[in-house]
Amino acid sequence: MPDSLGQLTASETVEIIATGQASCQEVARACLKQIETREPEVGAWAHCDPELVIARAAELDRVGKKGPLRGVPFGAKDIIDTFDGPTEYGTPIHQGRQAARDAACVALTRRAGGILMGKTVTTEFANVSPGRTRNPHDLTRTPGGSSSGSAAAVADHMVPLALGTQTTGSTTRPASFCGVFGYRPTYGDLRMSGVMEVAGSFDTLGILARSIADVALYRQVLLGVPPHRLAKEPPPRIGFCRPYFWDRLPIDTRSLLIETADRLASGGAEVEEAVLPPELEELESAHRWVAGFEMARNLTWEVENRFEMISEPLRSGRIKDGLATTYERYIEMRRLLVSCRQAAAPVFERYDLLLAPAAAREAPVGWDPVPDPWVHMLWSALHVPSLSIPALKGPKGLPMGVQLIAGWNRDSQLLSQSAWVYQALATTAWEAV
Amino acid sequence: MPDSLGQLTASETVEIIATGQASCQEVARACLKQIETREPEVGAWAHCDPELVIARAAELDRVGKKGPLRGVPFGAKDIIDTFDGPTEYGTPIHQGRQAARDAACVALTRRAGGILMGKTVTTEFANVSPGRTRNPHDLTRTPGGSSSGSAAAVADHMVPLALGTQTTGSTTRPASFCGVFGYRPTYGDLRMSGVMEVAGSFDTLGILARSIADVALYRQVLLGVPPHRLAKEPPPRIGFCRPYFWDRLPIDTRSLLIETADRLASGGAEVEEAVLPPELEELESAHRWVAGFEMARNLTWEVENRFEMISEPLRSGRIKDGLATTYERYIEMRRLLVSCRQAAAPVFERYDLLLAPAAAREAPVGWDPVPDPWVHMLWSALHVPSLSIPALKGPKGLPMGVQLIAGWNRDSQLLSQSAWVYQALATTAWEAV
Repeated sequence: MPDSLGQLTASETVEIIATGQASCQEVARACLKQIETREPEVGAWAHCDPELVIARAAELDRVGKKGPLRGVPFGAKDIIDTFDGPTEYGTPIHQGRQAARDAACVALTRRAGGILMGKTVTTEFANVSPGRTRNPHDLTRTPGGSSSGSAAAVADHMVPLALGTQTTGSTTRPASFCGVFGYRPTYGDLRMSGVMEVAGSFDTLGILARSIADVALYRQVLLGVPPHRLAKEPPPRIGFCRPYFWDRLPIDTRSLLIETADRLASGGAEVEEAVLPPELEELESAHRWVAGFEMARNLTWEVENRFEMISEPLRSGRIKDGLATTYERYIEMRRLLVSCRQAAAPVFERYDLLLAPAAAREAPVGWDPVPDPWVHMLWSALHVPSLSIPALKGPKGLPMGVQLIAGWNRDSQLLSQSAWVYQALATTAWEAV
Repeated sequence: MPDSLGQLTASETVEIIATGQASCQEVARACLKQIETREPEVGAWAHCDPELVIARAAELDRVGKKGPLRGVPFGAKDIIDTFDGPTEYGTPIHQGRQAARDAACVALTRRAGGILMGKTVTTEFANVSPGRTRNPHDLTRTPGGSSSGSAAAVADHMVPLALGTQTTGSTTRPASFCGVFGYRPTYGDLRMSGVMEVAGSFDTLGILARSIADVALYRQVLLGVPPHRLAKEPPPRIGFCRPYFWDRLPIDTRSLLIETADRLASGGAEVEEAVLPPELEELESAHRWVAGFEMARNLTWEVENRFEMISEPLRSGRIKDGLATTYERYIEMRRLLVSCRQAAAPVFERYDLLLAPAAAREAPVGWDPVPDPWVHMLWSALHVPSLSIPALKGPKGLPMGVQLIAGWNRDSQLLSQSAWVYQALATTAWEAV
């Protein structure tokens, strides 16, 4: 039993601990063992203190505290504060930085009985320069970013759950590359207290997990509400979405998506070609300008005090461009965001889910953590919830996600209806490592 | 000259330093002298290290660094991180808490040449329990909160500028009570990186100052854009607003506002009774539910680990209510917020400025820092910019503000047109202490 404990989902882990089949310590040790074995190759962790982890698990076994995540090991992206270990933002500038309190999301996870395993690798300031994480499916490839370590750790059975964040595609992209579920909530729903701001107009938390039930459970914990089971759903109305960037997708990706839509229709869903209002095409540059403006200002302290320690790509890219962006352009783009959100609303009335790519392709060889950001900008700019489900296999045999998107604040239905979709695609579903 | 240096506005300070009439050190010493004299009674500062202040000013004199706020002393509310001194959130729980980096707003102020004088007193977690600050106009009265120390310090000539924040009325209320200008920007405009989240759906920065020109200058510094002068404006179209809570205002306040509207009309403005869509009445409870839900979750770490150190009013009020709020109620209220913002848009097309109370009354006797929150909820919920201008005198002879509100992202015009209003009311304008 103990050897396979690390293979369990969060929901299964809770069950096995609640019924006395394993202790919190045994589960934690199984995860630590996997980390010990694989970490030298995968590099998912910025910080993990095994003794502290065991102490936390032992304490939980001792006090017998209840909670919907009792005994579940979790990782937190290293831009999310924890009071009992460092949070370093993926940069040597903040080496050893120690927060005084947990971020709200971490405190809520611990309240629910979760055991913090440590901090997962982020790209530098959750931006473009990679950390040392490798894709557990193929160590010559990027895991995707910026929530690189969170996706890799979940995919590699080091933890069943991890917290990420998303400004552009920082949760859905690595979820697709690593073959796990990646959930981005409705903007504003999950508290960002204690999480480094990248670009406040778009930042959300993200959840990485190995089942939709786990995503749903963890979401409720992070909302601070009593958990309940996923609703059983009839086949959803699906809008198959070929957004303005369709022609930029590799032909293989397009074929896989078309095939996926066909299979869902065969499975009983109403599938229709969804037409997006043409003005949404402008969201790509709106996202770029607004995020750049905000990122550059958020890094003012580092630019003024530690400029030489910022990576060259960040300095000469986002920071330089962001500082050159005028306020007039910024405001024009923020107005555009608001009107596009209003324009998109009818599409989300018409369909339960939109079906779209979760990444342009399977994980490429090399370390660029954020290829093809245009796949994600549209949805992040709209503030709508989305889920990347690991349902496809790319031409090289690597995992690829399908992205399902729902209307603003329809997160519950997104998850329950995505469970129907995942089930319908199950025969070709990608298995985690 | 040095004795009066502390009386200057920020714009005047910049001028006098740029022309060599005073050094940064002399200005800083003048402010420190005022703090030394008055702080035992006023209690505006959570932390002020005179030696460090002098060292910063001396360094600025030495390097001769240019900047639009060169040599201007400023305070920062004690929920805003600074890398070189404590940030304690107005609670003994975080006594001695030390951040690793400046909040974006502090770094931007220093980049512009501002000299951090220290941290100003906030209510506990920027919530309902007062700090030790007293109203500099009458030490038996509250300065208002939660940006209590920032408003009192500016009013009492301890600094020409201070950073506050606002979730409900935490900048405009103390500005009104203390007789200074209090600006709340369009939601999302000014970066919150490094600022404690109270309730993310409403939180903004706030600026406390002694002139509108200073507010405009500081706003541009915080936006990270090149500063330019306030535009000279013709008389604005003013909507005199008697919102749904009009009947709850004391008769004196109503009379003062009616008189103000009359005087502006006599001065040449187009003044008309503004009719708000009736559904905006619901914003009061929407603000209450949403803010409560978010605040309670943001304080999870403290609730779990330091419960006994949280004040009783916060524990048994916002936290208890917030934790009891269901997600369904939270989402229903967030939807309402969105629809009310759309419903309010035509009102802001029709008028340049709305004229409304900045507080229900002059500062009351005693220490309740947040009386009559219903005066503020409407505007904070709408995400529109507003400015409290110290133009009135209450029945006890204490300062009272008038609140001017503009449409989403019309901050520049709000400030330039408010300058017209302030000028038109100048003969009855309240003078700071």
